[in-house]
Amino acid sequence: MLLHSIKELRELRKNWRGLKVGLVPTMGALHEGHLSLIKKAKETCDKVVVSVFVNPIQFGPAEDYDKYPRTLDNDTVLCEKEGVDIVFAPTPDEMYGSGNRLSNDTLTYVCPPFFYVNKLCGKTRVGHFDGVCTVVLKLFNIVQPDYAFFGQKDAQQVVIVKKMVKDLNVPVEIIQCPIVREESGLALSSRNKYLSDEGKQKALALSKILNNIKSCYKRGITDIKGLKETAYNFLTEDYELEYLEILDKNTLEEQEYADNNSIVLIACRVENVRLIDNIYLED
Amino acid sequence: MLLHSIKELRELRKNWRGLKVGLVPTMGALHEGHLSLIKKAKETCDKVVVSVFVNPIQFGPAEDYDKYPRTLDNDTVLCEKEGVDIVFAPTPDEMYGSGNRLSNDTLTYVCPPFFYVNKLCGKTRVGHFDGVCTVVLKLFNIVQPDYAFFGQKDAQQVVIVKKMVKDLNVPVEIIQCPIVREESGLALSSRNKYLSDEGKQKALALSKILNNIKSCYKRGITDIKGLKETAYNFLTEDYELEYLEILDKNTLEEQEYADNNSIVLIACRVENVRLIDNIYLED
Repeated sequence: MLLHSIKELRELRKNWRGLKVGLVPTMGALHEGHLSLIKKAKETCDKVVVSVFVNPIQFGPAEDYDKYPRTLDNDTVLCEKEGVDIVFAPTPDEMYGSGNRLSNDTLTYVCPPFFYVNKLCGKTRVGHFDGVCTVVLKLFNIVQPDYAFFGQKDAQQVVIVKKMVKDLNVPVEIIQCPIVREESGLALSSRNKYLSDEGKQKALALSKILNNIKSCYKRGITDIKGLKETAYNFLTEDYELEYLEILDKNTLEEQEYADNNSIVLIACRVENVRLIDNIYLED
Repeated sequence: MLLHSIKELRELRKNWRGLKVGLVPTMGALHEGHLSLIKKAKETCDKVVVSVFVNPIQFGPAEDYDKYPRTLDNDTVLCEKEGVDIVFAPTPDEMYGSGNRLSNDTLTYVCPPFFYVNKLCGKTRVGHFDGVCTVVLKLFNIVQPDYAFFGQKDAQQVVIVKKMVKDLNVPVEIIQCPIVREESGLALSSRNKYLSDEGKQKALALSKILNNIKSCYKRGITDIKGLKETAYNFLTEDYELEYLEILDKNTLEEQEYADNNSIVLIACRVENVRLIDNIYLED
């Protein structure tokens, strides 16, 4: 069932008292990555809500909010095939009030800690994670799920959402699901739609860099600078590297040496499309 | 029943499914003002939780966190007399984790809008309302009440908490209760304990100023500058006025003329104790 209003959702939710409710928060343009979250939610929960909301407050002014792919009809069909109980697709006005300027002058925000934000994607996407945490908490409060499902693809996001849940005592359990990849190794992303066929070929460099670092680590290299330098073989002038970092996967702290708690994270522009990917060094 | 642990509270809370639960968040040092909130909660709800927590993150470094009155034994007795079901008195470590530096570098905060914060108490108490909203949301998530009870005494706080509830879709209804005063007119406050007998006499100026402005308004004066100037008769060198404002009671917006939506708010130091009070111009 497709719902657009918070009130209707809450009315329906009331009938689910005592049942295990799962939420899969998405920005739509659903692909196999999202479907893996939905399948996991269906396995774990009695009722599943998928939210489809391109959240304006997590996009910077120079980012792709307007052109972000919106495919609600198709998303709804996919969700129904998976047995999703409610697709919740509110408008920005429904979520933030009409006529509100969307800023911290007029709206209450949830602000994750600087230590977690001021690195990786947060460095270039100023305010992004404030917008993410704010909308995620709103969705949690609206849907009141027992479980919420997030993909490891957005690794910094999952760490920050888990931290928010802990810090604010949010009564929701976060379930993290692995990255889904094309056979080529390319991590699925709604933004892959922006790439040409050639661009998709070039984009394989991201997963190759990550896998190469992992196999170097498996062969005994733990020096972080050395591991990172192995990437430069792959990065020609077609790539605009934003970051390549090896950090503690739970705390996003820098490490002296790579170990089984390490995650390798990369962000890189290909054909001016910003792509991210990551891998755990432990299997 | 007195509980110190979040886990124990949650366990007990589970048995209350389907009952109306009320939360009265306090910093302890309970007086008749708090008891009026508790009585209202008892009337409205099946189960009542009173939290007693002097919240470190809402005090500035130069403020009275260390010397704030702590009277948990007495508070517990008072709550039991009122038929409170749970007194929840966590330690700072229980609320914020042990060893955590309490800052936005390491913790997720709830940040109310600048427009609501950057005036009245928020102007001098930088970060105060971030700390208030953060702890209130945490308590809401821990206790999961249907209703939460706040006193009008902290008028800016109630407006900001209501705004947070709306902005973040928090599934809690805020019940605002009137200020309780001594027969003299002095608004009850835990900080009144800091005053000498003479100081308590002097502190009556606050309510006198407010009542005088209200009677001027009732006599037809709506000019805000004029109404505010009536205060200067009361303010000798014994008083350090921090602010005296007449604003829209719901939005805290400035008004051209006072009207039935106006609230008059004052903050003033007497014997270096910071006191606040307010009054609605409508009866």
